[in-house]
Amino acid sequence: MSQLQTSTDRRRGANGGGRRVYALLRAQIADGSLAVGARLPSTRALAADLGVARSTVTVAYEQLAAEGFLATAPGRAARVAAPLAQKVSARKATETEPRLACALSAYAQRVAGMELLTAQTSAAAPARIDFLYGAVAARDFPTLAWKRAYQSELLRQQPSLYYAAPEGDSGLRQALQGYLRRARGLACSAEQILIVQGAQQGIDLCARLLLEPGSAYVFEDPGYVMARRCFEASGARGVPVPVDSLGLDSDSLPADAQMRLAYVTPSHQFPLGGVLPIGRRQALLQWARAHNAWVIEDDYDGEFRYGQRPIDALQSIDTDGRVIYIGTFSKALSPQLRLAYLVLPASLVPLFRKAKRLADRHAPVIEQRVLAALLGSGAYERHVRRMRRENERRRQALLDAIRRHLPGDAKASGSAAGLHLVLWLPALLPRHEPQLIAAARAAGVGVYAVSPLFARPPSAMAPRPAGLILGYASLTLAQIDEGMQRLAGAIAALAAPHDL
Amino acid sequence: MSQLQTSTDRRRGANGGGRRVYALLRAQIADGSLAVGARLPSTRALAADLGVARSTVTVAYEQLAAEGFLATAPGRAARVAAPLAQKVSARKATETEPRLACALSAYAQRVAGMELLTAQTSAAAPARIDFLYGAVAARDFPTLAWKRAYQSELLRQQPSLYYAAPEGDSGLRQALQGYLRRARGLACSAEQILIVQGAQQGIDLCARLLLEPGSAYVFEDPGYVMARRCFEASGARGVPVPVDSLGLDSDSLPADAQMRLAYVTPSHQFPLGGVLPIGRRQALLQWARAHNAWVIEDDYDGEFRYGQRPIDALQSIDTDGRVIYIGTFSKALSPQLRLAYLVLPASLVPLFRKAKRLADRHAPVIEQRVLAALLGSGAYERHVRRMRRENERRRQALLDAIRRHLPGDAKASGSAAGLHLVLWLPALLPRHEPQLIAAARAAGVGVYAVSPLFARPPSAMAPRPAGLILGYASLTLAQIDEGMQRLAGAIAALAAPHDL
Repeated sequence: MSQLQTSTDRRRGANGGGRRVYALLRAQIADGSLAVGARLPSTRALAADLGVARSTVTVAYEQLAAEGFLATAPGRAARVAAPLAQKVSARKATETEPRLACALSAYAQRVAGMELLTAQTSAAAPARIDFLYGAVAARDFPTLAWKRAYQSELLRQQPSLYYAAPEGDSGLRQALQGYLRRARGLACSAEQILIVQGAQQGIDLCARLLLEPGSAYVFEDPGYVMARRCFEASGARGVPVPVDSLGLDSDSLPADAQMRLAYVTPSHQFPLGGVLPIGRRQALLQWARAHNAWVIEDDYDGEFRYGQRPIDALQSIDTDGRVIYIGTFSKALSPQLRLAYLVLPASLVPLFRKAKRLADRHAPVIEQRVLAALLGSGAYERHVRRMRRENERRRQALLDAIRRHLPGDAKASGSAAGLHLVLWLPALLPRHEPQLIAAARAAGVGVYAVSPLFARPPSAMAPRPAGLILGYASLTLAQIDEGMQRLAGAIAALAAPHDL
Repeated sequence: MSQLQTSTDRRRGANGGGRRVYALLRAQIADGSLAVGARLPSTRALAADLGVARSTVTVAYEQLAAEGFLATAPGRAARVAAPLAQKVSARKATETEPRLACALSAYAQRVAGMELLTAQTSAAAPARIDFLYGAVAARDFPTLAWKRAYQSELLRQQPSLYYAAPEGDSGLRQALQGYLRRARGLACSAEQILIVQGAQQGIDLCARLLLEPGSAYVFEDPGYVMARRCFEASGARGVPVPVDSLGLDSDSLPADAQMRLAYVTPSHQFPLGGVLPIGRRQALLQWARAHNAWVIEDDYDGEFRYGQRPIDALQSIDTDGRVIYIGTFSKALSPQLRLAYLVLPASLVPLFRKAKRLADRHAPVIEQRVLAALLGSGAYERHVRRMRRENERRRQALLDAIRRHLPGDAKASGSAAGLHLVLWLPALLPRHEPQLIAAARAAGVGVYAVSPLFARPPSAMAPRPAGLILGYASLTLAQIDEGMQRLAGAIAALAAPHDL
């Protein structure tokens, strides 16, 4: 069964023979040929029978005794002490739906009932030209700088390796504090920063610590589904608030006594792209004060704003410590790093540190130090500026290609910031989105429907055309142009009446 | 405020002047010198006043309008649209206890009430010779092999970087499946494996998905505190089961209708070191069947067994899919990597994948591929064998040093496996442990009390002497000897009557 040979085997000169004797005896106990209570031969006798050294048999007996299969006593014959079940064969998770052995928590039951397929995993194979939102170009990653910093951190070793602090590397938190002040107008102390495994963990910690069955929360409609699912999983009641071209419609915030939390994307509403004006920001904070609610500000792509400098964070005008800011390295570096951070109101710092320690102790250490080095040397900010220029070119190429190839009534919205835009197609209805996506995919183009991001279906009160989310951060300018050309072909074919 | 200059600033030739104009106007809105409704000068007039290019002022007005501070309309003067709160100064998390703005969940309240200080963070500074359990020697880390594999994986890039599958890298799960079969006698499919952020996340996912208020669970007493805290935080009721030199006392398992889960360390009980015999393993599984309970098998240091080969996992004799196996790379490589894995019963696979995706999407990608490469090439198993020999030497040195330096009644237990042992000092009582630890620390030696790992205090029914946990994986043979010599001095000083 095992080719593994322990140093002990070797030291005793057993050369694996002990393992074979062990396996033989174990098989005989398992199949009942050595029943409970049965007396085993002496080590000397069995060694002679099997033609191995006596020490070889002794090793096997000791192992079986240590495992409790044999009862041994000085000067007495070893006996079988316990039966051994036949090994169950490995089951495949994908075979038939296996029966649950035992009960699950209410949380688990909510999670089990959720649909969590992401854009990419739901598709059979990636499209040749994929406007997948959230993907970034591998060639944009600062491989050389990262490699150098990683090597240097790997070699700069501590005397011993032990668990680190839950809040994250102090050098990284210091560097982030300076970065946030310079780049996001966010004045905080390094103590308020908590390093997390991607924004998803930040959102999940908030859901877990701030929501529960019986409480309620507000979310943007349409909005970021993976955040909404975390809140839903908490068992709290979600209230969708409509979004227009400026972001969350603060006039529609509900009066609700159970309200505990609002989740917003004020820098660049996901997916519609609005930049929340100061009046609405203040109305949101006033509403939160009136309802004694927390506000989660997910600044998922705040670095990428074109034409104006990035807008200061909502947290920078929060006077009473109710805004939790989430920032991430997924867009400027890579979503596969799983590194993001929370800037917490001071009152939440001790609680979130404890919860992070319970959840997974802390983020991986070397990667945090690599980031700290890149932030400290200025390399990270240079990289972000380069990425902003790069993505501004991609954005412009996409807007140009839309104008050039798509029907005249197609309208791009939310392109002033971020790494995606929403393309509205007034000639089509939301129910046409699946066909459109299939047609585009058949033409080698990956596009993604906007409708799954809405909590409420379109209605006479709130009508809307078909819409596509186009992420452009992973594509070349040529791919962007060709992609829109191919999409135009797919739309033209679809708009023919027999297809609809 | 910011030294950051956007590409837009540069393109427009504003050279940061727009930022200064912006900051000036923003300050005036904030301090009320520009009140809501106030008319701003024309861009031409302000540019002349400030001695800057008109385009510089235009950039600032556009930014303020985009943020909603200014209302602009073609051919009309810009007006202040919204007031701006004075920026709150950064608060320090460590100042006075800040007031919570809003309510917390019941989960958060349980977490907030917990004591989670770990061994190391509770100490002012690390001891010169630190028998810290869980620490490993940095010089044992296979730095060169890791560096090579990391570089190769960093360069072997995908066309684009996007979120990966929640269950983890398929290459790593395949490699682990083979490793577990060879090294742990565990037959599973790669589909049953879920890569997690350290064993802590595996435990936390189990607590979250399998426990809730109103349910109950069994844990080993004494046992692993960070696991117990996760279960406590779920709100479920914990029932301690005593441990003897063979591990969990299966005769003491409670009859309890709410029982949902048992958490055990059968390969090497933490901290007492017993190896659970087959009879108790079968009794535990029978108890679980009778109570319809899950069993979590935490195999935290199963690779390190001296004298016999590592004992097969409990999950390998589970016939009805109720055992969840947890394995980790923290002991053989580094706890700072935060990489571990669950082997799940097939029935739990879809649920745990969803929960992992909600919790943090997936583990970091490159590190997983590095591990897969090391497992695939055999380098990982060679490293484990080397570590086993290395740690066997350390263990022997510690046992020798205890015999050589400590009082004759001092007794080491649980040293047949793992990276620590428990040292019992029959001349002292549990209540002397804090003084003993302080005296050892004053002598430059870090040792850790066993009492905090007990859920129940010592009693007339269950008396026990003072005990120390001695981890040896991070120390040299010379440090181990010197450490015991110094500890002996501390004990001798303490045992003088005036100290007790």
